[in-house]
Amino acid sequence: MDYTLDKINSIINGRLIGAGNTSITGVASVENAGQGDITFIKDDSLVDKLLASETTAAVIHREIDGFQKPAIIVDNPFHSFIKFLETIAAERNAQPCGIHPSACVSKTATLGANISIGANTVIDDGTQIGDNATIRPNVFIGRDCVIGDNAFIHPNVVIYEQTTIGDRATIFPGTVIGADGFGYLQKDGKHVKIPQVGVVEIGNDVEIGANVTIDRAALDKTVIGNGVKIDNHSHVAHNAIIGDNTILVAYAKIAGGAVIGKNVLIAEDVGINDHAVIGDNCIVGGGSNVYKSLPPGSVVWGSPARPLNEEKKIQSIIKRLPEMRQKIKDLEKKAQAGNQLSVIGNKHIP
Amino acid sequence: MDYTLDKINSIINGRLIGAGNTSITGVASVENAGQGDITFIKDDSLVDKLLASETTAAVIHREIDGFQKPAIIVDNPFHSFIKFLETIAAERNAQPCGIHPSACVSKTATLGANISIGANTVIDDGTQIGDNATIRPNVFIGRDCVIGDNAFIHPNVVIYEQTTIGDRATIFPGTVIGADGFGYLQKDGKHVKIPQVGVVEIGNDVEIGANVTIDRAALDKTVIGNGVKIDNHSHVAHNAIIGDNTILVAYAKIAGGAVIGKNVLIAEDVGINDHAVIGDNCIVGGGSNVYKSLPPGSVVWGSPARPLNEEKKIQSIIKRLPEMRQKIKDLEKKAQAGNQLSVIGNKHIP
Amino acid sequence: MDYTLDKINSIINGRLIGAGNTSITGVASVENAGQGDITFIKDDSLVDKLLASETTAAVIHREIDGFQKPAIIVDNPFHSFIKFLETIAAERNAQPCGIHPSACVSKTATLGANISIGANTVIDDGTQIGDNATIRPNVFIGRDCVIGDNAFIHPNVVIYEQTTIGDRATIFPGTVIGADGFGYLQKDGKHVKIPQVGVVEIGNDVEIGANVTIDRAALDKTVIGNGVKIDNHSHVAHNAIIGDNTILVAYAKIAGGAVIGKNVLIAEDVGINDHAVIGDNCIVGGGSNVYKSLPPGSVVWGSPARPLNEEKKIQSIIKRLPEMRQKIKDLEKKAQAGNQLSVIGNKHIP
Repeated sequence: MDYTLDKINSIINGRLIGAGNTSITGVASVENAGQGDITFIKDDSLVDKLLASETTAAVIHREIDGFQKPAIIVDNPFHSFIKFLETIAAERNAQPCGIHPSACVSKTATLGANISIGANTVIDDGTQIGDNATIRPNVFIGRDCVIGDNAFIHPNVVIYEQTTIGDRATIFPGTVIGADGFGYLQKDGKHVKIPQVGVVEIGNDVEIGANVTIDRAALDKTVIGNGVKIDNHSHVAHNAIIGDNTILVAYAKIAGGAVIGKNVLIAEDVGINDHAVIGDNCIVGGGSNVYKSLPPGSVVWGSPARPLNEEKKIQSIIKRLPEMRQKIKDLEKKAQAGNQLSVIGNKHIP
Repeated sequence: MDYTLDKINSIINGRLIGAGNTSITGVASVENAGQGDITFIKDDSLVDKLLASETTAAVIHREIDGFQKPAIIVDNPFHSFIKFLETIAAERNAQPCGIHPSACVSKTATLGANISIGANTVIDDGTQIGDNATIRPNVFIGRDCVIGDNAFIHPNVVIYEQTTIGDRATIFPGTVIGADGFGYLQKDGKHVKIPQVGVVEIGNDVEIGANVTIDRAALDKTVIGNGVKIDNHSHVAHNAIIGDNTILVAYAKIAGGAVIGKNVLIAEDVGINDHAVIGDNCIVGGGSNVYKSLPPGSVVWGSPARPLNEEKKIQSIIKRLPEMRQKIKDLEKKAQAGNQLSVIGNKHIP
Repeated sequence: MDYTLDKINSIINGRLIGAGNTSITGVASVENAGQGDITFIKDDSLVDKLLASETTAAVIHREIDGFQKPAIIVDNPFHSFIKFLETIAAERNAQPCGIHPSACVSKTATLGANISIGANTVIDDGTQIGDNATIRPNVFIGRDCVIGDNAFIHPNVVIYEQTTIGDRATIFPGTVIGADGFGYLQKDGKHVKIPQVGVVEIGNDVEIGANVTIDRAALDKTVIGNGVKIDNHSHVAHNAIIGDNTILVAYAKIAGGAVIGKNVLIAEDVGINDHAVIGDNCIVGGGSNVYKSLPPGSVVWGSPARPLNEEKKIQSIIKRLPEMRQKIKDLEKKAQAGNQLSVIGNKHIP
């Protein structure tokens, strides 16, 4: 990257102090910024770090005494800095339009305008790719899929037959969408596969991390709502439904037929039991296992998951279990002594 | 899909009621079936849903008053419906025979009859592919592997050198078989790799989900028995042995050298310690960590895993820990009071 | 493989007893060794197994009465056997030099001497590949990466833009390095992506298993130190730092900004909270969740993780909770009886 401060300010629209032709060749946190970098501080708590920094320029929320370097002053430096980062990231992600000669695109696929299809990517029969979509190398998209406008599919993603993906979806490498759900019937001591003939339907503005799996439904649909964000190594099993704007942090384990509401936050390494219904706006703490349905707005933690305050209380008691056990021993001794006393006492009671 | 009811009945052999030329273009659950669909109900518990459904036809277990639509009557609608689903799934999975021109198949590989090898797939020297095997695009199969008859290897699977896979195996995308086990020797404060020169041997009728890893043995073999089913994101470490017909649900973590018996059910997100021996017919509940060996037929749960009833009892007590703690406090108060009483009492004892 | 004992001894430099021209066609553990194999025993504890073995030859630590087969005697049979295994493994891993005609290597990439680039591998603009590096088929390496000398990148690995990987790195299939970290800003009830414009920097002598993900930093770097070993299915989130020679066993979940010291052992299925600081030489037991920072040398276990002895004590008490509850009940009964006695007693007290 190579920007002038003037150029950066034209993106974030702040008040520029210092030389607008200052050359910026990198971005960094205030702790790590050096020669050529632009950084930001979100508020006064980082002023000392800014003053100690070797950064070339900064996005800040007010003029700062003793900071002599070029700066852009804005109301919300974090938000404004993100605007600039969006420009950098878009630049980094930009791919040449067109279809790489080594890609295998079916003649019956329908391709939107301004698409980019990378090397060795396979797009099978009847699949539609939306306008401005980017499909990077070594991707496989099976038959009769629909990929929305402005989708960005990273390398080595597999999207299986009949999957629908909305606009502006981003899917990171190694993720597999539409593989068979895990369903068997026990018959004569053997496991007979229940064919998985449903589909996966993914909404708009969804982002899915790396090495995630979202299985196709047995019948009907596995559904990922609009605006859902799914982190690496997560698994959404067959027929699960994830509501709009819900977040699944890494290693979310959503079992078959579970229904997760809208605006739910599932923290890292959480298991949701099959067919559990998690209401809107729930928060599930990291490492939890949710075995039962949760009403909307629940805040739970633990394994099995309990209301957060209850779990915290229980955890604080578990920590003191050795002490509790000692108290019981002490009480037993006293009771023993008391009994003896009673016995002695009894003797003396007329 | 486009079937007539007559055609469907020719597959499932029931008693057809209504127009055999009715066109069926989809399958769905009784809750979601609509125009053009065929659905099923497994028993009387779903009759009301069937009557309320907009399905075009149904597979049912008896004539139902008020259900005016075409139907196929069979003894076990679930099993019969699965037969039809198998037909649909086979249709969906069918691939053209032959080797895609972009595939790289070694001249020293041995290829069975009627195989299908997809685009960009690499098959290395000395590897044998069985009859009727389907290898989809972007697959890598290393040297000297054996892939059985009727195997179905999905896109982006990696099968490493000297792996043996039995007949009718299905392996879903992103799965890696035969990568090195994780073994190091500590020497002068550094980790020296123990070369992993064993192999992986997979039996017949095995199904392996997406993004699974099965590591090659250090020496000897990692073994997956006949009829084993392994769900997404699972990991079978070096030298582990999985007995016939065992099921590993998602995120099974089978550590090095563990020996899992036959017909074991490992539920989701279970860890089995290295070298633990899990007897035949065990059931391990979801989220458990099994640190010790288990005799055949054990049913365990928890972390560390305990006999199910014991763990349930413990869990029910943990829930009441705050109450228990209060009781101890009350007892302490009473004991304190009792002591005082005793002291008072003592005074009165002559 | 096909070696003579003479040849093997030329690698491990021991004292050969028996026919040097004995042909060895396999390696196996003492339990499984058979015709044509060479095996080893690490010490006297396995002498009985060796005598019962059908191996053709063995590497042993002393002459053993009754063992009539050819043998190589060395000080440390395990270490010497590993030397031989290294030779076998190197042989198995060896790839032909050159660039496969189906690989897509950018004209602006810089390629070292004696490299091997496999079929369908994509190497993007500005990337440098070190001398003697092996990049196997279906790999994607994005723009402006640096891959060190003697690196070995297995099939279907994805290495994203601007990643730096040191010398002698080994990366197993399905692993994704440099995908975006998981960071969003809440704005008007929606999740706005925080662009991830940092990088990943990986040191020398690092080994990374299959289906691992290492995310790029939001700003600055995600760092994997020299000599780090990472097992399958692990996840290192954005801006995490892993110190030299640290080991992450399978399913390590290192959250954003966590700092792990040097020579740390993170056992299987451990979660480390975001921004937690784990000191050098810590050991974290399998299945733990570490929510807080740990001083150097800590040995912890559990969820939440506690000092090992404390957790063991707590676990041993949890096991006896039913008994504890019974004791409290008994104490309550006695207290009840005691009260009655007191009441009775009181009556008698003048």
